[in-house]
Amino acid sequence: MNTLENSFLNDFRSMSQNGATPGGGVDRQAATVADGQNRNWFRGLVEGHGFSVHYDAVGNQYSLLELVPGAPWIAVGSHLDSQPLGGRFDGAYGVLAGAHAAIRVQQQFAESSHNESEPKFNIVVINWFNEEGSRFKPSMMGSSVYTGKIRVDQVLVTTDPTGVTVQEALESIGTIGDFELSVAAYVEIHIEQGRSMEDTGLSIGLVESTWGANKYEFIVHGDQAHTGATFIADRQDALLGASALVVAAREIALEHSTDEHMVITSCGEFNVFPNSPVVVASRVNLLVDIRSTDPDVLAAADAELHARVAKIEQMANVRIERGAEHVWAAKAYDQAGLDLAAQSAKALGLRYGVVRTLAGHDSTNMKDIVPTIMLFVPSVEGISHNERELTKDQDMLAGVDLLTEVLTRVVRGDFVSPDKAASSLASATAN
Amino acid sequence: MNTLENSFLNDFRSMSQNGATPGGGVDRQAATVADGQNRNWFRGLVEGHGFSVHYDAVGNQYSLLELVPGAPWIAVGSHLDSQPLGGRFDGAYGVLAGAHAAIRVQQQFAESSHNESEPKFNIVVINWFNEEGSRFKPSMMGSSVYTGKIRVDQVLVTTDPTGVTVQEALESIGTIGDFELSVAAYVEIHIEQGRSMEDTGLSIGLVESTWGANKYEFIVHGDQAHTGATFIADRQDALLGASALVVAAREIALEHSTDEHMVITSCGEFNVFPNSPVVVASRVNLLVDIRSTDPDVLAAADAELHARVAKIEQMANVRIERGAEHVWAAKAYDQAGLDLAAQSAKALGLRYGVVRTLAGHDSTNMKDIVPTIMLFVPSVEGISHNERELTKDQDMLAGVDLLTEVLTRVVRGDFVSPDKAASSLASATAN
Repeated sequence: MNTLENSFLNDFRSMSQNGATPGGGVDRQAATVADGQNRNWFRGLVEGHGFSVHYDAVGNQYSLLELVPGAPWIAVGSHLDSQPLGGRFDGAYGVLAGAHAAIRVQQQFAESSHNESEPKFNIVVINWFNEEGSRFKPSMMGSSVYTGKIRVDQVLVTTDPTGVTVQEALESIGTIGDFELSVAAYVEIHIEQGRSMEDTGLSIGLVESTWGANKYEFIVHGDQAHTGATFIADRQDALLGASALVVAAREIALEHSTDEHMVITSCGEFNVFPNSPVVVASRVNLLVDIRSTDPDVLAAADAELHARVAKIEQMANVRIERGAEHVWAAKAYDQAGLDLAAQSAKALGLRYGVVRTLAGHDSTNMKDIVPTIMLFVPSVEGISHNERELTKDQDMLAGVDLLTEVLTRVVRGDFVSPDKAASSLASATAN
Repeated sequence: MNTLENSFLNDFRSMSQNGATPGGGVDRQAATVADGQNRNWFRGLVEGHGFSVHYDAVGNQYSLLELVPGAPWIAVGSHLDSQPLGGRFDGAYGVLAGAHAAIRVQQQFAESSHNESEPKFNIVVINWFNEEGSRFKPSMMGSSVYTGKIRVDQVLVTTDPTGVTVQEALESIGTIGDFELSVAAYVEIHIEQGRSMEDTGLSIGLVESTWGANKYEFIVHGDQAHTGATFIADRQDALLGASALVVAAREIALEHSTDEHMVITSCGEFNVFPNSPVVVASRVNLLVDIRSTDPDVLAAADAELHARVAKIEQMANVRIERGAEHVWAAKAYDQAGLDLAAQSAKALGLRYGVVRTLAGHDSTNMKDIVPTIMLFVPSVEGISHNERELTKDQDMLAGVDLLTEVLTRVVRGDFVSPDKAASSLASATAN
């Protein structure tokens, strides 16, 4: 193993100490003390390599590495926050890989004497705020604000379950500011969090598209009653209604999946009120999401979910309200980016293939405003959002190698043209 | 309305201010500040009428009214604690009714000159600690300790969800001591919390027996995973397993109920871990209870529940552990007590009938150690454990009248003999 590789793995192991959990994972939920420690640790690391670090109004952390004064910026990034009892790799791998790739790109250009390989762009490594959405909802918060999908003033007053706002939390860890930066393209590397790459023996995944996803908050309204004394016929049991909805969501996934297009449904959060041993629940808030690779299959599954909701209202004698929704369509990544990443992987002799992502990532937002390249490395057994999440050292290192090669080509102007980027930035500024 | 009636209703309204909620209910969970305020309020009330107040090692509150120095004691009681967002009547009505009845019994004996109607017993009004079980489990904690069903040292280290122990909580409100008292009989009046009396137009219910109940804690073990990225086939979704169990419990109630014997199943508490929007749950803890009037029907429903658990483990790819259980058999109250209460109701011209209780009460424990009489007053629409819980003024007052009459007869020696009581106490002490 060479010096560069040692350096990456050592840094990764150091970073994984921040917010480490006894089970081998990390707990670095957005803007917690542990997230703040990790952000400062990362700041120290990149400042030692000549980056300058800034924060925007929603706490996105920008580490700027200037190669060509005045040139437009290429962003590479992911997120350092984690789930509670999350894995060490999710997001954090991509941010650290971005920093190492940027450093290596700078060294390569410095060592090169060819005129043709002069950099045309600067590099910014972005650590997006609150990708996970476990403490503050919705997920992908920082990149959603950056891409104009949600408003920063709305986000700053969003509270965690104890009533702390995003603004208060960011101020408490000192990582909020007023920095602004436009970028010409975005590159992200992330662990797959599924097992399709492991199953097919790939070391690199080139992400072709996101799955479509419909995410809903449902509020099941019942009526509080005594579990002992109230006859079944008199009950309006919110917990029964919500449970039936969880079961229905799974049935819909199984019934609507085809050989070509999978449907995945999930309920990740489920809160019962008043949640006392001898009280029939008056209310349950739960989140249900449906994903599919195909928009027609997704629409059919979604219609079935809503039909089931009406039936469950009858069965459990409850009213089911649909609260917030968060919908994104299946959408392709940039074809030129896929080609560039494929050529890079081929040049390095890596075993690569085209994959789709079931999960949302910050690149899901970024691809809607700038040309974007999304790369995956494998997850052992597809385990993720779990302390046992694992990506092997050689896969992490292959990912950094590939990201370095991709970033070199992008910075050289092979993906987006620096002139076009400059003019599109100018027009974006004018809007 | 006469003075006695005014006095009861005024006291009831004053008491209902302690821990009052905006929705018209109370929140006086066991050993909270509001519960402490109410205990002190009650202490002040009865001390003003010559009672002396003491606490035992588990915080049961004894208000002693001595009529015959040295005589054995008759207990009347219920509980002053409530559910979160509970009603004003559940338990609290019975304790206050007990105090008022005791005061009236004392006055009647004082005003009477008949030799035959001399009291043979003293009266203690007991406010049992933590009948509700919402903050500290299990429910009926104080009476369970008193009747030897659970050990006080176990109870004192039991914690609430924030880690506070029973002992710490009781000490913080100053209502713990070392008082001990044996009693010869027990009388309790309570709201029905169901609607059978309202449906049949009764103002007084004489409780013939408890339903049998099996209460289980289940722990559904899954594996934490990413809701977006993990294929359905790879999931071990604890929330799906727990939800299927909630749905199965309802199906069992509907399938096993007969015209003669109803089966009631409930899930009142349901906690999901880690409960994050994008994480497949690794664990759900839930409580399931099954009740029936018939032991064979109950046994069949219970067997079906356990068969379903095994099927759900397969379906959801989870492991379901059975934790704590709390089982009580359907059991009759004392027939002589039923007869005495019926004669008392008849003498007062009240419309009474025999009922069963679906819910557990402190008398469910007490009837296993001493002759016990359990009385009900109606609940409007059967609504209970709800801020809208209501018992009409005239029904409350009829209940106090009946309780006074019953207590008069019991104190006179019509229910248990003072000599027998003294000797049984002596033998109990010897054990």
